[in-house]
Amino acid sequence: MSDNNNDSNTTSTIWGARFSDGPSAVMEEINASIGFDKRLYAQDIRGSRAHAQMLVAQGILTEADGKSILQGLDEVEGEIVAGTFEFSRTLEDIHMNVENRLREKIGDAAGRLHTARSRNDQVATDLKLWVRDALDGLDDALKDLQAALIERAEEHAATVMPGFTHLQAAQPVTLGHHLLAYTEMLGRDRSRVRDCRARMNESPLGSAALAGTSFPIDRDMTAKALGFDQPTQNSLDSVSDRDFALEYLSLLSILSVHLSRMAEEMVIWASQQFAFIRISDDFSSGSSIMPQKRNPDASELVRGKAGRVFGALMGMLTVMKGLPLTYGKDMQEDKEPVFDASDTAELCVAAMAGMYKSATFNVDNMKRDAGKGFTTATDLADWCVRVLNLPFRDAHHVTGAVVKLAEDKNCELEDLSLEEFQSINPGITDEIYSVLGVDNSVSSRTSLGGTSPQNVLAQVANARERFLA
Amino acid sequence: MSDNNNDSNTTSTIWGARFSDGPSAVMEEINASIGFDKRLYAQDIRGSRAHAQMLVAQGILTEADGKSILQGLDEVEGEIVAGTFEFSRTLEDIHMNVENRLREKIGDAAGRLHTARSRNDQVATDLKLWVRDALDGLDDALKDLQAALIERAEEHAATVMPGFTHLQAAQPVTLGHHLLAYTEMLGRDRSRVRDCRARMNESPLGSAALAGTSFPIDRDMTAKALGFDQPTQNSLDSVSDRDFALEYLSLLSILSVHLSRMAEEMVIWASQQFAFIRISDDFSSGSSIMPQKRNPDASELVRGKAGRVFGALMGMLTVMKGLPLTYGKDMQEDKEPVFDASDTAELCVAAMAGMYKSATFNVDNMKRDAGKGFTTATDLADWCVRVLNLPFRDAHHVTGAVVKLAEDKNCELEDLSLEEFQSINPGITDEIYSVLGVDNSVSSRTSLGGTSPQNVLAQVANARERFLA
Amino acid sequence: MSDNNNDSNTTSTIWGARFSDGPSAVMEEINASIGFDKRLYAQDIRGSRAHAQMLVAQGILTEADGKSILQGLDEVEGEIVAGTFEFSRTLEDIHMNVENRLREKIGDAAGRLHTARSRNDQVATDLKLWVRDALDGLDDALKDLQAALIERAEEHAATVMPGFTHLQAAQPVTLGHHLLAYTEMLGRDRSRVRDCRARMNESPLGSAALAGTSFPIDRDMTAKALGFDQPTQNSLDSVSDRDFALEYLSLLSILSVHLSRMAEEMVIWASQQFAFIRISDDFSSGSSIMPQKRNPDASELVRGKAGRVFGALMGMLTVMKGLPLTYGKDMQEDKEPVFDASDTAELCVAAMAGMYKSATFNVDNMKRDAGKGFTTATDLADWCVRVLNLPFRDAHHVTGAVVKLAEDKNCELEDLSLEEFQSINPGITDEIYSVLGVDNSVSSRTSLGGTSPQNVLAQVANARERFLA
Amino acid sequence: MSDNNNDSNTTSTIWGARFSDGPSAVMEEINASIGFDKRLYAQDIRGSRAHAQMLVAQGILTEADGKSILQGLDEVEGEIVAGTFEFSRTLEDIHMNVENRLREKIGDAAGRLHTARSRNDQVATDLKLWVRDALDGLDDALKDLQAALIERAEEHAATVMPGFTHLQAAQPVTLGHHLLAYTEMLGRDRSRVRDCRARMNESPLGSAALAGTSFPIDRDMTAKALGFDQPTQNSLDSVSDRDFALEYLSLLSILSVHLSRMAEEMVIWASQQFAFIRISDDFSSGSSIMPQKRNPDASELVRGKAGRVFGALMGMLTVMKGLPLTYGKDMQEDKEPVFDASDTAELCVAAMAGMYKSATFNVDNMKRDAGKGFTTATDLADWCVRVLNLPFRDAHHVTGAVVKLAEDKNCELEDLSLEEFQSINPGITDEIYSVLGVDNSVSSRTSLGGTSPQNVLAQVANARERFLA
Repeated sequence: MSDNNNDSNTTSTIWGARFSDGPSAVMEEINASIGFDKRLYAQDIRGSRAHAQMLVAQGILTEADGKSILQGLDEVEGEIVAGTFEFSRTLEDIHMNVENRLREKIGDAAGRLHTARSRNDQVATDLKLWVRDALDGLDDALKDLQAALIERAEEHAATVMPGFTHLQAAQPVTLGHHLLAYTEMLGRDRSRVRDCRARMNESPLGSAALAGTSFPIDRDMTAKALGFDQPTQNSLDSVSDRDFALEYLSLLSILSVHLSRMAEEMVIWASQQFAFIRISDDFSSGSSIMPQKRNPDASELVRGKAGRVFGALMGMLTVMKGLPLTYGKDMQEDKEPVFDASDTAELCVAAMAGMYKSATFNVDNMKRDAGKGFTTATDLADWCVRVLNLPFRDAHHVTGAVVKLAEDKNCELEDLSLEEFQSINPGITDEIYSVLGVDNSVSSRTSLGGTSPQNVLAQVANARERFLA
Repeated sequence: MSDNNNDSNTTSTIWGARFSDGPSAVMEEINASIGFDKRLYAQDIRGSRAHAQMLVAQGILTEADGKSILQGLDEVEGEIVAGTFEFSRTLEDIHMNVENRLREKIGDAAGRLHTARSRNDQVATDLKLWVRDALDGLDDALKDLQAALIERAEEHAATVMPGFTHLQAAQPVTLGHHLLAYTEMLGRDRSRVRDCRARMNESPLGSAALAGTSFPIDRDMTAKALGFDQPTQNSLDSVSDRDFALEYLSLLSILSVHLSRMAEEMVIWASQQFAFIRISDDFSSGSSIMPQKRNPDASELVRGKAGRVFGALMGMLTVMKGLPLTYGKDMQEDKEPVFDASDTAELCVAAMAGMYKSATFNVDNMKRDAGKGFTTATDLADWCVRVLNLPFRDAHHVTGAVVKLAEDKNCELEDLSLEEFQSINPGITDEIYSVLGVDNSVSSRTSLGGTSPQNVLAQVANARERFLA
Repeated sequence: MSDNNNDSNTTSTIWGARFSDGPSAVMEEINASIGFDKRLYAQDIRGSRAHAQMLVAQGILTEADGKSILQGLDEVEGEIVAGTFEFSRTLEDIHMNVENRLREKIGDAAGRLHTARSRNDQVATDLKLWVRDALDGLDDALKDLQAALIERAEEHAATVMPGFTHLQAAQPVTLGHHLLAYTEMLGRDRSRVRDCRARMNESPLGSAALAGTSFPIDRDMTAKALGFDQPTQNSLDSVSDRDFALEYLSLLSILSVHLSRMAEEMVIWASQQFAFIRISDDFSSGSSIMPQKRNPDASELVRGKAGRVFGALMGMLTVMKGLPLTYGKDMQEDKEPVFDASDTAELCVAAMAGMYKSATFNVDNMKRDAGKGFTTATDLADWCVRVLNLPFRDAHHVTGAVVKLAEDKNCELEDLSLEEFQSINPGITDEIYSVLGVDNSVSSRTSLGGTSPQNVLAQVANARERFLA
Repeated sequence: MSDNNNDSNTTSTIWGARFSDGPSAVMEEINASIGFDKRLYAQDIRGSRAHAQMLVAQGILTEADGKSILQGLDEVEGEIVAGTFEFSRTLEDIHMNVENRLREKIGDAAGRLHTARSRNDQVATDLKLWVRDALDGLDDALKDLQAALIERAEEHAATVMPGFTHLQAAQPVTLGHHLLAYTEMLGRDRSRVRDCRARMNESPLGSAALAGTSFPIDRDMTAKALGFDQPTQNSLDSVSDRDFALEYLSLLSILSVHLSRMAEEMVIWASQQFAFIRISDDFSSGSSIMPQKRNPDASELVRGKAGRVFGALMGMLTVMKGLPLTYGKDMQEDKEPVFDASDTAELCVAAMAGMYKSATFNVDNMKRDAGKGFTTATDLADWCVRVLNLPFRDAHHVTGAVVKLAEDKNCELEDLSLEEFQSINPGITDEIYSVLGVDNSVSSRTSLGGTSPQNVLAQVANARERFLA
């Protein structure tokens, strides 16, 4: 077809037959996605393989064409992996870059590959495959971080530290217990990863532009070939749907909340005033002007990067808001936030794992502060309930008065004399001194999920079974 | 205890024993949550009942005190339901409002209810119970909306309309197929509701302030009484965790994307230019100055309210970012966004259901436009592939040239003569006219998930089974 | 007119003439704005007064009707202020509630008030007037907060504390200097308030529904009466524009960043580990279970409420995104975020002012920590540059080695012997000890904007002149 | 100094003297900013020049060293411009990359350049200079877009089209008037650009790490050299402040709202149903499967990219929330959102300008629809007020009845007979027909800012004076 030959000489965009002049520089800049969607090359080629094999199986493509296409795709992928592939912005996107190169290699047969599909279902398939891989990678990374936390928790099952509410010393807890709290959060993150993966694992391929196709395709076959559980049920929805990207960004945002909490704590704990932790050299930085500085840069960056992930989610929600069916070009804005948030999350998880593995906990400082701020006041109140049979609210008031007395005398609770205790409530006996120590306090917290060292060891075992098995 | 009597005379806040002067007006304004957390009264009382019964069962509370507490709680709840309860801002929150009234009713025993718990685990329990109820209500509402869509889809299984990509007529589709696309989206929303509910359904009650307790409580018993699957595993995490609120807001945000897409479409379809839909009087409004106006206000509000829900999510993510363990007062900012987004979503779902049920689809206008814009060009290309054995890319170019010819002649594709077709590709025969009609086009799209009327009926049956059973 | 009488009997919505059945409950719930826009009553009535007076002046309304309307509006406003006005949700919004009551009072003349205007320009005017008042109130509140900071800064011009970067002790600074940093931030906030006010101060009144009007109105007159600088220039823009709300929410968001930074610092400084500040009883809370607790609740809430304000901005941006001209009902979603963010910001500013005024700074602890962490290492490096003429980078390395030596010996820099200094660089003399003290360090920072006490006093005077004059 | 020589052999990070082992791969990945901050090279070098010249002027640096530094900086910049500079990630950022290369070129003198400054004030200066340039560029781009709109507005001052509220035909307006509405929005955007520029234009250079310096620097001199109005007043604030970035992102977000509104309108107007506009080939794209498609891709991308800019703002607000003073590494997350949002906005503005310049408005279709939907009903109501002296509300009801009659008869208002008009209100005369035409309607809207063609021409002149002079 001479028409076609001419066309391939004069323009490399596929709608060349109808547009007389080429897209301007602005248009190319705003329109082309190859700059970022080339990250989808492996998924794109994988999808094309599955599509081609199905077309052959259904008799829509000849065996010879199919073979030629598969071989050509192998070569194209080889070039990309080897770094010799020349990506062209005029060809807009990864789909056209790959197909165009395929045509250069195998000629007309390449033009048969696009039968019964469209870039609309193709890109949905590519991005789903990419997100699915990312979810799997994330799950592994989170498991590794949990493993690091569990190991340190076991090591510090009996290390006493102040437990905080409102960043005020509240009650003594164990460091192991504290670290396992993060393990639980990450466990929920992984559970969200699993749910997202299961929900999104349906193949849009074969939905074509929007309406399905009149070719006798087998969508179950391509779904299976690509590891999907089944094909999607509605072609209009299939090309309009970016739920999987939104859900992925949502779970990354919640994960980022968790990571930012760990990171904030590290920054605070690394201050001279807290001195609870020494972050390893590997994750600290110096100053260009203050030679003594040892800055928790990695922690701060993990904390800050939560904003980046939230921004990606907010951006993507905004993009999708109010788009009428079906595909709109706005959706091209789905890839960069997904890629960036994904990279960010993986980097942050790795950094946290590295920091937890290598950090030194200053257990002496933790223990020193565990009793600061009358943290065993609740133990005193509980003793009044248990032994004196006071209603808790009354016990709370008794203890409040004791604390005030100690404050006025500038001493700790256990430094008060029995007479002083009895001046507040005559029923108090010297048994009271047995509940005021920090170690006694944590050991007594044996309720399910509580902070006692024996509980922590049980939680460690339980966490290993739930998360690392 | 005289100390206690004095206290109850001079102050109504529970830490009165240590603070000499009362909170200022600014503090009361910023600190008190009773203005919004009174919505949690039923959950709060339910949790207190479960806690009291457990304390009795474990011998921590006497049977008499337990009975007195349960009876008192019934009375308090009765007063709230009856509207005779006087909420006090000085008492800060729903927990202290209820407990204080309980003390007025039953005296000292009320003070024993707070044994082995804290407001930290109490509020986490209350809000979880509330969100769980909201998830159940949302699932019902979504099911109702799906039912409305499915019914209209069945009615319009064969109604032809233009299918759009980029809001440009692309290929003819059926209205039933279009409506079912939204059913699929809502199906994923319901799936997210289920996952969120299952994940969050663990009881934090008994985690106390943060560290657990030394009282021999039975957390399995309270979990069971409150319908939780099991207790949470780490007390520090339990009082720090608001994942369930974040996940709820995330799924509401994704749902809002879907609702806003439906709404946008309604607004566009209701324009004089489209005239695809007549929204019922119930969901239209007039103008104070333009008597002829019939505005799709409800649709616009559903569309706009997506912003509100996104804002709630963004706000809550920001609140939780970087909070060190465990409870921080910042978390009090969890309730208003959850309540508001929840109310918003339920209202919007109800409005959409009402609109779909009562809207009139202008099927004549839809059919009239179904063929506008050369929407059967793909059918022509596919025919060239199937019959002339052209590679798809070449068929695409042939069709492009045919479209250009029709554009130049200002006619539809089927208005071109066979000679004109053959001037572009000599192989074209008069069989071509059979694929150019709109009805032929939709009927041919029989691939799984495609738009053909018979497919739509099958999808309707399938959707009923998956979503309405 | 009998038609009118009938109408007022059967329906209370203004488009009743065309709609046969009344809006459903869902519609009323989603559509009515009176629940929140009644806050605009004063602005609405003020705008109506200006409009009526202008209509009279232009001969569009008779003097008698004008007089009747003005008197009626006074009465209506009186009822609202007195709390006797009955707001009706069926009447939808504040505009119709006021007009309807006016009609009950003065009859037909009320129906002439809406000549040459529409709810579209009316609501834009109302909300602009409200935001303008809010901006003025905010400016006053920010000035008060600055005054509190400046006063405390003067008091602590020479109070030495550790200056932090990365929350690591970096160099000694003065507390006064630190507090003035926030004064600068607030100064920029006030500058944004001024710019926003000036930009938005144009009157949309008289733009009517969207296209202007054929009545010979005088928009300059109403603009002047309402304190606007001039009328807006394009009627389509006037009813479509919510820039002023977006800009207001943007500046509140940036302000919230500043407040959250102050708040975070207070939370950290109030910890037992820092103990730099004692927040007054008025802004602290206790615990229901831990009697010793003294929680910085107000600070935490200020910090958390930043999320709320960001959410309002995000929501409103999303609402406005992609709305075609001119007015869309989505814009009704403008009021609640504006009201809520405005209330939030004013409360937070008041809380911060209250806290700064009443807080006790623990100057001993600050001084104790000012030298911790080798904070005068930069002074040592600068000395090497000045006296030994080392390139700064080399001086940085010398100092790094000195710090390492002190770390190894577990002592402060000034505790090293001269021999030890000279072991690292032989040129160091005993003059070095004069730059190592904390007070010497801060006194030497006399560069413009630097931390020396004399600078701080100059900055205090300068700040008073710039911000409080 | 052998120590130094060794150091430069073994490590290229500046805090090498104290850290024994090198940063891990994860740390380098998370910590290094050179990948993006190399965009600041020109600003960084410009700042270094100003700093060096000031150090010489103040006698802190010798003339010879100063000369050497300036010459070296010229060479370094030359290499970067020429593309021969090798950026090193181990050197972390642009500051150290430049300084390190300088040292390779000129030796020890390079080490003297960092006297009396820190990377903290250096990066603040660099980014401010970059944003300032971006603001200037943006202002130019917006002016160009305004010019395009004004030109098309003049051309279409009398082109009649339907004016929309709620996307419902409301009243006839002129296309010129419509386009000028956007000109007003952009005028406010430019006003925000100016305010932001003026507010941020203070030099942080010389604030050093945080506390100022003891070297006798002249901050006025560097401020002047860099085009700043004056130095900042507080060194702690100077290194902590990113208001300028937040404000820049805020104004870009509001601008993005405007652009997204234009873009949405183009997408709707380009639909087959509206057919109000033909976007030029340069800004349209085709389909890989539907040969007839002509998609408004550029418009959709402009619309979608609003999400991206909002996301950048939300991310950056989140990053800055709750950061205690002074510099925290989180702030390194400031650059990518600023760069990305800036690039996005400039691209979108250019695309919109290109599209407005080249679009074809289908004036016949606009005129055809201008009267659809009884858009002159308000003119009828106004006539009743003016001529029959009906209260507006009564006139509104009369008109409502007329519209209903025309609806029932399926005709336009002007097609009703005088008898039919009089059946609704007997006072109506045949003068009524003179106000019902679309052209009469727009011509009558002569109020300030109204839509009449003569007004539009006046507005065009006025806009040229305000915006293009």
